[in-house]
Amino acid sequence: MKNLVVIGSTGSIGRQTLDVARRFPDRLRVVGLAARRDAGRLARQIAEFRPAMAHLAEGDASGWEAQDVDIREMVTHPQADVVVMATTGRVGLLPTLAAVRAGQQVVLANKEVLVMAGEVVMAEARRSGGRIVPVDSEHSAIWQCLVGEAPDGYTPLPGGPPHVRRVMLTASGGALRDRPAEAMDGVTVAEALAHPTWEMGPKVTVDSATLMNKGFEVMETHWLFGLPYDRIEIVLHRESVVHSLVEFADGSVKAQLGPPDMRLPIQYALSFPERWANPDLPRLDLGRPTTLTFDRPDLDRYPCLRLALEAARLGGTYPAVLSAADELAVELFLAGQIAFPEIPRLVESALAVHHPTPHPDLGAILEAVESTRHEALARSGR
Amino acid sequence: MKNLVVIGSTGSIGRQTLDVARRFPDRLRVVGLAARRDAGRLARQIAEFRPAMAHLAEGDASGWEAQDVDIREMVTHPQADVVVMATTGRVGLLPTLAAVRAGQQVVLANKEVLVMAGEVVMAEARRSGGRIVPVDSEHSAIWQCLVGEAPDGYTPLPGGPPHVRRVMLTASGGALRDRPAEAMDGVTVAEALAHPTWEMGPKVTVDSATLMNKGFEVMETHWLFGLPYDRIEIVLHRESVVHSLVEFADGSVKAQLGPPDMRLPIQYALSFPERWANPDLPRLDLGRPTTLTFDRPDLDRYPCLRLALEAARLGGTYPAVLSAADELAVELFLAGQIAFPEIPRLVESALAVHHPTPHPDLGAILEAVESTRHEALARSGR
Repeated sequence: MKNLVVIGSTGSIGRQTLDVARRFPDRLRVVGLAARRDAGRLARQIAEFRPAMAHLAEGDASGWEAQDVDIREMVTHPQADVVVMATTGRVGLLPTLAAVRAGQQVVLANKEVLVMAGEVVMAEARRSGGRIVPVDSEHSAIWQCLVGEAPDGYTPLPGGPPHVRRVMLTASGGALRDRPAEAMDGVTVAEALAHPTWEMGPKVTVDSATLMNKGFEVMETHWLFGLPYDRIEIVLHRESVVHSLVEFADGSVKAQLGPPDMRLPIQYALSFPERWANPDLPRLDLGRPTTLTFDRPDLDRYPCLRLALEAARLGGTYPAVLSAADELAVELFLAGQIAFPEIPRLVESALAVHHPTPHPDLGAILEAVESTRHEALARSGR
Repeated sequence: MKNLVVIGSTGSIGRQTLDVARRFPDRLRVVGLAARRDAGRLARQIAEFRPAMAHLAEGDASGWEAQDVDIREMVTHPQADVVVMATTGRVGLLPTLAAVRAGQQVVLANKEVLVMAGEVVMAEARRSGGRIVPVDSEHSAIWQCLVGEAPDGYTPLPGGPPHVRRVMLTASGGALRDRPAEAMDGVTVAEALAHPTWEMGPKVTVDSATLMNKGFEVMETHWLFGLPYDRIEIVLHRESVVHSLVEFADGSVKAQLGPPDMRLPIQYALSFPERWANPDLPRLDLGRPTTLTFDRPDLDRYPCLRLALEAARLGGTYPAVLSAADELAVELFLAGQIAFPEIPRLVESALAVHHPTPHPDLGAILEAVESTRHEALARSGR
C-alpha cells in the first residue's frame, strides 16, 4: 500500500491521478489532497477518498472531514509515501523542494519546477535520497526505455550516461501545427486549446501550441536523466503514439508507445517497478491499418521553442526567466489581454533584459522569477 | 574477453558475426570456426582470425593452421564461452543440444532448432544452466524490450510471464508481398530471393517470401520467452524498422527499432548486458521524413504461415514435420525442381500423413524429421 498526497488534485493531472487511485484501492491510499480554488470538486474528492489532510489555497475549507494542513506540512508528512505534484507554473517549486529535501518520492507533473531549478532540485534529491519520478508521457517513455539498461540510470555522470547515445523527444506539433505561420495573429484562445491528440490543462495546452512545452521537456530530460543538451533531439510525430525514443551506444533504439492517455504514465509512476493491469486504459492496436510519421520540426515556425533551447544552452537563471515570462504571457493570452504572437515576444524581451546568475541558488532563482514577472507586467503597461 | 565458436561461419550470419568480432578484437576472440563446404572462404577466415579449432564438414581441411576438431567437440570445448549457431535447417539441432547440455551460452540463429525441438532444448538449458540467446532481429527486439521488466524474464511460468500481455512480431511481408496471389505460379528463384529490406541466406529468404519464417518465429518466441501462443501476434510492417513490440500488463508498449542490419542483434547477443559503440552500424534518423506502417497480415495470402500456426497449435512432432518438409521443399524450389506454390502443398501433405507423438523426446523428433524427408521425397517421385 502506498500513501499518496496529491497537490493540485482538481486539475487535469490531479483528477487522472485519482482515477488511477480509484481503480487500485488495495494498492494506493489517498492521505492528502490540495487544490488552489475549486472548492466544490475538492469537497467531492474528500468525500470520496477520505484523506486525513486537505488544503484549499484560495477559499474556505471549513466544515470538511479532513484536517486542514498546509502544503509544506502535507508534502513532508511522514505518513506520505509518494507526493504527486500536479500543479502548473511557479507555485510548484517550493513544495517540490520541501518534499525532495524530506527524502520523499515526488511524482512531478509540474514542468516548470525542473526548468526553473533543475540543478538545485536534483542536487537536493541526491543529498536526501529523495527521488523525482517523471509523469509526462515523454519522460515516462524515456524512463521505461532506460529500465534495465544500466544500474546507474539515475546517477548523473560527467558527459552523460555512457550507454545512452541520444534521446528523441516526440512532439505532436500542438493545436496550431497546420495553421500557416502568417496566420498566427488571429489565433483565438479556443483554437490554442484544441489539442489534436492530448487532453490537458490550459497552461500546458497553450505551451503545446507554441512548442514552449517541448523546450521545457528538453530541460527536464537534461536534469532527470543527466543528458547533455546535444544528445537530446526533438522529432515531430503527429500521431502521439510513440511517446519518445532512446538510442543506445550500439545504435539500437527503444521506444515506448501507447494511445495518448495520461493515466498510463501516471499509473506507471505509482506502480513502478510493478505494472498493473487496468481495464480502464485504452490499448494500442497495430492490427488495424496504422501509419506513424516522423519529421524534423521547423524551428522558425515555433519561436518559443527556439527561445527555450537558447535559454537552456545559456543556463543559469535564463530558464527561470523563460518560465516566469511564459507563465505570465500565457495567463495574459488566456485572459484575452494579448494576442497569440505576443507570447514569444514577451518571453524574448524578458530574456533580453535579464542579467543572469550562473549556477543560481534558490534565492537567486526566486528573485529572477519574481522580478521577471514584475518587470514584464510593468513593460506591458498592466 | 569472450571466446567464440562460430558454426556455419561462411554463411550470411557467420560472416556478419565475424564482422562484429573483427571490430572488437579486445572483447571477442574467435577460437573455433566450422563450415559445410566453402573451403576457400573458411581458409581465409582461419588465416585472419587464427582460431585454435576448425572444421569443414564436406571437403578437405588439411594443411590449415588450425586443429581439425569435430563440431560436437568444438561446441562443448571448455575454451569456448559462446557458441554461435549460424547454420540453417536440421543440421543445427544436435550441435545446439550438445552445447546446451554442456552448459554453454548458445547464440542461436538456426531457426529450425527451436521449431523442431523447443521443449527438449529449453528443458536441457534449464537443467544444465546453459542459455539460449536469440539473434533474429525479432527475438532480439523482444529480449531488449523485456530487459529490466522482470527479474524472471527467462523462467517459464504456467500461463506465461505475468508482466507481459502480448508480443507483436513484425513481418515485412517478404519478397512477394506486392505480387497478386493468383500470380504465385510463375515465381522464379531470383524473385523469391529478392527480399525488400533484409539481406539473408537463401533458405531464410525463401521462408520470408512464404512467411513460413514468421511461423517459425512465433514458435521460437513461445519457447524462448515462455509465452502462450494466444499472446503472440503477427503485425505486417513493411519498412522493417520496428523489429518487434511487447505489450506489458498495464498496456504500455515497448518497441525496438533500427535500420535492418543483422550485425546489431548479433552484436547485442555478444555484448549483453553491455552495449558497444560500433561505427560500422547504420543509424536510425527520424529527423528525415519517415513513415512507418502497420497492418494485419492476410493469412489466405500466405498458406505456409497458416500451416505453421496450425502445427504450432497442434504441437508434438508436428512442428518438426513442418520444418523438415519445408526444408526439403525449399531445397527443391531453389534447385528448380518444384514451382513456388508447391512449397506449401508439399508441407501440407507431409503434415496430413503424419502420426504425431505428443511431448516427443529427441529420438521421436529425429525420426519424424528423417521419415518426413524420406516419404516426401518418395511422394514427389524423386
